[in-house]
Amino acid sequence: MGKISAEGVGEVQEYVDICDYATGLSRSLNGQILPSERSGHALLEQWNPLGVVGVISAFNFPCAVYGWNNALALVTGNAVVWKPAPSTPLIAVAVTKWVIVFVVDIGFCLIVPGSALLKIETLFFLYNHMTFRLIEDVLKKNNLPGGLCSLVCGEGDVGQALVKDKRVNLVSFTGSTEVGRIIGQQVQARFGKILLELGGNNAIIVNDDADLNMVVPATVFAAVGTAGQRCTTTRRLIVHESVYDQLLERVKKAYAQFESRIGDPLEQNTIIGPLHNEVAVMKYKVTVAEAIATGGKVEYGGKVLDDKEGNYVLPTIVSGLPHDAPVVLRETFAPILYVFKFKTLDEAVKINNEVAQGLSSSLFTNNIQNVFKWMGPKGSDCGIVNVNIPTSGAEIGGAFGGEKETGGGRESGSDSWKQYMRRSTCTINFSKELPLAQGIKFE
Amino acid sequence: MGKISAEGVGEVQEYVDICDYATGLSRSLNGQILPSERSGHALLEQWNPLGVVGVISAFNFPCAVYGWNNALALVTGNAVVWKPAPSTPLIAVAVTKWVIVFVVDIGFCLIVPGSALLKIETLFFLYNHMTFRLIEDVLKKNNLPGGLCSLVCGEGDVGQALVKDKRVNLVSFTGSTEVGRIIGQQVQARFGKILLELGGNNAIIVNDDADLNMVVPATVFAAVGTAGQRCTTTRRLIVHESVYDQLLERVKKAYAQFESRIGDPLEQNTIIGPLHNEVAVMKYKVTVAEAIATGGKVEYGGKVLDDKEGNYVLPTIVSGLPHDAPVVLRETFAPILYVFKFKTLDEAVKINNEVAQGLSSSLFTNNIQNVFKWMGPKGSDCGIVNVNIPTSGAEIGGAFGGEKETGGGRESGSDSWKQYMRRSTCTINFSKELPLAQGIKFE
Amino acid sequence: MGKISAEGVGEVQEYVDICDYATGLSRSLNGQILPSERSGHALLEQWNPLGVVGVISAFNFPCAVYGWNNALALVTGNAVVWKPAPSTPLIAVAVTKWVIVFVVDIGFCLIVPGSALLKIETLFFLYNHMTFRLIEDVLKKNNLPGGLCSLVCGEGDVGQALVKDKRVNLVSFTGSTEVGRIIGQQVQARFGKILLELGGNNAIIVNDDADLNMVVPATVFAAVGTAGQRCTTTRRLIVHESVYDQLLERVKKAYAQFESRIGDPLEQNTIIGPLHNEVAVMKYKVTVAEAIATGGKVEYGGKVLDDKEGNYVLPTIVSGLPHDAPVVLRETFAPILYVFKFKTLDEAVKINNEVAQGLSSSLFTNNIQNVFKWMGPKGSDCGIVNVNIPTSGAEIGGAFGGEKETGGGRESGSDSWKQYMRRSTCTINFSKELPLAQGIKFE
Amino acid sequence: MGKISAEGVGEVQEYVDICDYATGLSRSLNGQILPSERSGHALLEQWNPLGVVGVISAFNFPCAVYGWNNALALVTGNAVVWKPAPSTPLIAVAVTKWVIVFVVDIGFCLIVPGSALLKIETLFFLYNHMTFRLIEDVLKKNNLPGGLCSLVCGEGDVGQALVKDKRVNLVSFTGSTEVGRIIGQQVQARFGKILLELGGNNAIIVNDDADLNMVVPATVFAAVGTAGQRCTTTRRLIVHESVYDQLLERVKKAYAQFESRIGDPLEQNTIIGPLHNEVAVMKYKVTVAEAIATGGKVEYGGKVLDDKEGNYVLPTIVSGLPHDAPVVLRETFAPILYVFKFKTLDEAVKINNEVAQGLSSSLFTNNIQNVFKWMGPKGSDCGIVNVNIPTSGAEIGGAFGGEKETGGGRESGSDSWKQYMRRSTCTINFSKELPLAQGIKFE
Repeated sequence: MGKISAEGVGEVQEYVDICDYATGLSRSLNGQILPSERSGHALLEQWNPLGVVGVISAFNFPCAVYGWNNALALVTGNAVVWKPAPSTPLIAVAVTKWVIVFVVDIGFCLIVPGSALLKIETLFFLYNHMTFRLIEDVLKKNNLPGGLCSLVCGEGDVGQALVKDKRVNLVSFTGSTEVGRIIGQQVQARFGKILLELGGNNAIIVNDDADLNMVVPATVFAAVGTAGQRCTTTRRLIVHESVYDQLLERVKKAYAQFESRIGDPLEQNTIIGPLHNEVAVMKYKVTVAEAIATGGKVEYGGKVLDDKEGNYVLPTIVSGLPHDAPVVLRETFAPILYVFKFKTLDEAVKINNEVAQGLSSSLFTNNIQNVFKWMGPKGSDCGIVNVNIPTSGAEIGGAFGGEKETGGGRESGSDSWKQYMRRSTCTINFSKELPLAQGIKFE
Repeated sequence: MGKISAEGVGEVQEYVDICDYATGLSRSLNGQILPSERSGHALLEQWNPLGVVGVISAFNFPCAVYGWNNALALVTGNAVVWKPAPSTPLIAVAVTKWVIVFVVDIGFCLIVPGSALLKIETLFFLYNHMTFRLIEDVLKKNNLPGGLCSLVCGEGDVGQALVKDKRVNLVSFTGSTEVGRIIGQQVQARFGKILLELGGNNAIIVNDDADLNMVVPATVFAAVGTAGQRCTTTRRLIVHESVYDQLLERVKKAYAQFESRIGDPLEQNTIIGPLHNEVAVMKYKVTVAEAIATGGKVEYGGKVLDDKEGNYVLPTIVSGLPHDAPVVLRETFAPILYVFKFKTLDEAVKINNEVAQGLSSSLFTNNIQNVFKWMGPKGSDCGIVNVNIPTSGAEIGGAFGGEKETGGGRESGSDSWKQYMRRSTCTINFSKELPLAQGIKFE
Repeated sequence: MGKISAEGVGEVQEYVDICDYATGLSRSLNGQILPSERSGHALLEQWNPLGVVGVISAFNFPCAVYGWNNALALVTGNAVVWKPAPSTPLIAVAVTKWVIVFVVDIGFCLIVPGSALLKIETLFFLYNHMTFRLIEDVLKKNNLPGGLCSLVCGEGDVGQALVKDKRVNLVSFTGSTEVGRIIGQQVQARFGKILLELGGNNAIIVNDDADLNMVVPATVFAAVGTAGQRCTTTRRLIVHESVYDQLLERVKKAYAQFESRIGDPLEQNTIIGPLHNEVAVMKYKVTVAEAIATGGKVEYGGKVLDDKEGNYVLPTIVSGLPHDAPVVLRETFAPILYVFKFKTLDEAVKINNEVAQGLSSSLFTNNIQNVFKWMGPKGSDCGIVNVNIPTSGAEIGGAFGGEKETGGGRESGSDSWKQYMRRSTCTINFSKELPLAQGIKFE
Repeated sequence: MGKISAEGVGEVQEYVDICDYATGLSRSLNGQILPSERSGHALLEQWNPLGVVGVISAFNFPCAVYGWNNALALVTGNAVVWKPAPSTPLIAVAVTKWVIVFVVDIGFCLIVPGSALLKIETLFFLYNHMTFRLIEDVLKKNNLPGGLCSLVCGEGDVGQALVKDKRVNLVSFTGSTEVGRIIGQQVQARFGKILLELGGNNAIIVNDDADLNMVVPATVFAAVGTAGQRCTTTRRLIVHESVYDQLLERVKKAYAQFESRIGDPLEQNTIIGPLHNEVAVMKYKVTVAEAIATGGKVEYGGKVLDDKEGNYVLPTIVSGLPHDAPVVLRETFAPILYVFKFKTLDEAVKINNEVAQGLSSSLFTNNIQNVFKWMGPKGSDCGIVNVNIPTSGAEIGGAFGGEKETGGGRESGSDSWKQYMRRSTCTINFSKELPLAQGIKFE
């Protein structure tokens, strides 16, 4: 997708980690035995597999997002059908190599291994010539059917087939809020289960007691890493007025340091790769223009690097906008950072929370009162609520996901596995009598 | 709503029980502290209140359904707005006595204490003259604002106002699958949280080793209790061929015994009260007619008791229908029981699972192999999976709710409280260093 | 036992609270269902009652300690035999009113309701004339045998009978480390279960960033409350050198303010009541003398109030002692506070941890780094690790108890209930086959 | 130790499995965040490492027992000192290769790498010439100190040094009840933590509805596997009178089938290897003699195989003894099976429970009522309560261990990891106020 090597390796590592995690989970996916109020009865809570999990993943994490879903879905006993982003099919093939093709007719969906879909012709050619096929090998070695981890490639019509198919018990969708809003309703309409990981509009709040030596690198990496195309990318920097000038200056200097390290993502020295495609560059341009038109000042960057072949842009810092300007409230998948000033922490939290998205958020402070307030009912309304680390960089042991227009789903750690299962509340009467009200007798 | 006294008292008891349960929960609503993979970091999972919980309840449990939601929503730190069924406002007023009135204009919803809505005029009159007001008293005694437990009465337009209002963070809806399907999509469209408790089409499977002395009363009570108007009412009886004739005979005899005990629900002797209203009687008639037209044989009942004033009908047993006849697959909120025959348990489970609803299910058997199969991935696909007790009669310690078109929500026990909260995954860096990849230094 | 009214009411409130808590627990005492590695098998974890729980409680919380044990032991399905402190039998009788008398002969122990023990003659007289009998009434109302909550009064020989009796499955002992050390071994020798709540030697660490407006009242209440006779009483105050002088001055002033409020514990104005008995006064005197002899300076108090009738002493502050002086390392059950100075937090934590007891500890700081260090592997080694509240004042929702010579037991919240139960790990093969290695066949 | 190859491989597999399990645990070892009753407070439960875990293991599982402890102790953050059985040091060296030597003087214990202990001279020679050293390699690769996993070899005096050393925070002992009783008291005397896995006297109950095709192989494998030297070996067979004769006949036939497969444990065909040493053979002989003297009838075996070089004995079945004969109540570590008859399940459970040991137990039945009774308060009093599988063969996902004289410890799965940690109950006041009773003000 264009990310730099180190980040690519990181994605694979996440897949490895979640597999380790899932192996442990395989012996600890627990239901409960609860005391019954009736003598001679047992109350059990049993978790069973859903059946088929459909995973629709986004271009920006073409490997790890599937990995997270794949590992949990398998360990909870499900089969998985994966539809990767239309622009990253090769990674998907390299990961799985099992392909099932969707033929999508009007109102009719058929899963037929072996049929063909014109638009993935090239894909098939490559598929037949690739030797790198991770999951297939593992399944074969363990005598498991390849269909446990199926891959379907294609555009939105393929995704729609998955979404509307009653046989797909859970649809785990990572992508934009716009698409997620539609998919959510479609799956809900058929009472399927949904796991949504949608847009983020993540902020770092820098309190007056923050250690700026930590804030500067944290901000820069979270704002320009993966060229600003992570769902957890920092897009807003909300700074206490007392450190605002100093911090802005230092962040700008840091950006300048990085300018020579924009380029070919496969080169060792590169820190910032290209945007994913031309549309992304276009959106970057439009957004910068709108920011300026709304009264914003470009503190750094703001330009497409036309001299470089590829979709390269300068990471950008914009100040001076109202914190609730439409361009700020919108998620633009590009390395654009809006900077704001605040007087009180309450005000900063309000700014953090006023966007529609609710994925990630960070506060830099050393004060225990601020920390617990930030995590509490009157603090951040995001799913990820960090302290002294930036908005990106979640660990697989925690539940990953966000509130509000981010969609409410949770992946990876904690009890996220429950989303891949259905719960049976079982009351077993193991006495020889039936407890009944009213004491009526029957012949 | 017309239920008999003993069942009414039972509803109140459920409210009492869930309050006890919630009091205990108040000290055990736990998030987690998890080990972080980074030294000097803590990974916390904090649960925070959602804000406002909207409860839309059904006529058949006009007190307990609210009680379950109310107790959990309060103990998890939320305010509650309740819209009861249009036909049971008095119970709602008696329970709460706090009233906030909705003025519903085109696309506009306003919560204004003190305004008026014509259609609840009478309600207000009664409200002002009632002295029985449970929640209000408790809140006053504890100096809590009455708005914590608001009541709004009205028709579907009031419900729609709640459903569409972004300020209502969770909509907990109990009612029909038809309405739930719409509400589900509406709330999903605004990325609100949804808790759906919709229709059931619940079956009892009677295996050849079942104790018929337990099956007979279990079936009768679960099929005719609350005049067949529970969401957990037994609507299908799936019987092993070896005991079919014997069991049918005994159940019919038991029904006959009850005929003299149909009547005024407030009289001590009554076991079966009336249907809720004339529409319900109409649906009963239509369904019986359709069953007969499809080839069904009325083994018992099938008639409206026209001589009695009120909506009284005979509880009804129908045999001889195909197990997948449309009339069987449909939930009719009336005391109609369809009886089927099976040869193997696998077949019986398949019949149990072939309806669109997934609320409750029971198996009568004494065999451990059957029991665990029934609870497992190839067993019942319902949320409630009972053994040797009928489909009704859940305990508040377990999670109550169902799969498929029943909506997937869970109320009452286990970790149902999580649905009333939002989760924050918090990573706290409490070291003085920022863990960063790539070892880049900043000035 | 001599505590002031407000504290007495507090004890009763704790009993009420734990009953509420236990009521909730009654529906959530959960075992687990875990996935088995063998197909057709279920792995369950079932918790069962132990049988009989013996509670030996101390004089300083003559009501609440029993309450905590009683509520959890009952809700987990056990019967309870209570042996209160020899000096507080009346409270015990008031709480239970059920009496079973131990006749202790050589190597023989008999629980016989109705027999007599000379030394509790007076007790019986009072027993027969008391009308206040809480538990008895509850059991009677619910048709439960009184023996569920038995009371035995007496000296150490009665305690020994309980400790050595194999029928007492769990001995929950609250008292001194000396006695706990013996009892622990005695119960261990017969492989009984033990729950020990022994001595504390609790410290407050005051960091340089602490809010002294919080530290002063916190220290005073925790050091002089219950006349220094709580297991969680603050006995050591470890203060950063930069605030040492200021804090010591303020604490002394606060002590002086309280001097006029030492007296009859039943009077409204009283804040400090008497010591429990003359032995306690003697130990107070000896300890103060030893402290002075070791080089300590009495900053405040140090005197017995001989003019008052009863066991009244002045709360005492001693400075200038080595932090590892024997008198400091020893727990004296009296209001004596030793004050120390530190330079670095690491040093303060080391001082906190160098005593043999490990009950409670507090750090006053606002810094998140300090807080998590304090809670972590290199922080406090106590069972209770507070921040910005003193060493006393635990909540029933948490697990209460301490490490090292405090004995390791945990009461009240979290999963403390597991100590009152035994665990069964159950593997159920519900298939029709036995999984066996080596594929050997049998005729 | 003499076990057959397949069983040896099985031990290694258990070590591998627990490592996988522990890897998963490393991200899910959770404490809790609980709601505080005080506003502005957080109640946390944090688990911290103990420090040093001492593992004293038995000869019969010379690899797996250490593996279970080692994996959990490491993942919970502890260092481990291992003292294997005196007769199996080579396996221990092969597993770890790190050696620290104890010099044990009177009342003084010193852990000094590099010092020497005469009696392990030979060991050192071998140590220096072995190339197979699993843990050492792993630690080195990860730059961890070898001392994390130390090994000390020796006799009881070395064990005593570990047991009495205050620096060893937890002593995990697997061995006989006799030694465990002493060690338990010694560790308790210094308020250390103890995890005891002592003797078993395990029974299989065969109900009248049991499938004998499952019972026969289950019994045989559990009674003769590892030559009857597992702690979970089946030593008692309690059979319903209606199937007694038939079952006994079949089990005897099965034993006879195995006679030709007693021999060199490294040969592929062997199923029964030798006893561990000559003392074990002596005990076997004495026990058989006592059984006969008490009135028992040797149904099969009962003889030492003197013609074979090595400690070979015939697996033995004895009938006709009183179920409470001293020889039955005692655990003899040899393949001797006592057979009894029962009339009612209650009687059989009583026999199961009347021994002092409480490790493992099995019931063969297909009846749900029996199963839940068996698992419940009036069922088996063992830690392992199986159904339709024999007494041996625990899974690492469950908690392994037993009640009564088996010692009460739990290893491997569920929450066993908590035994390797200490719990801190932390209340953090993050408000700026101190909640205090009585409203007293300070200057």
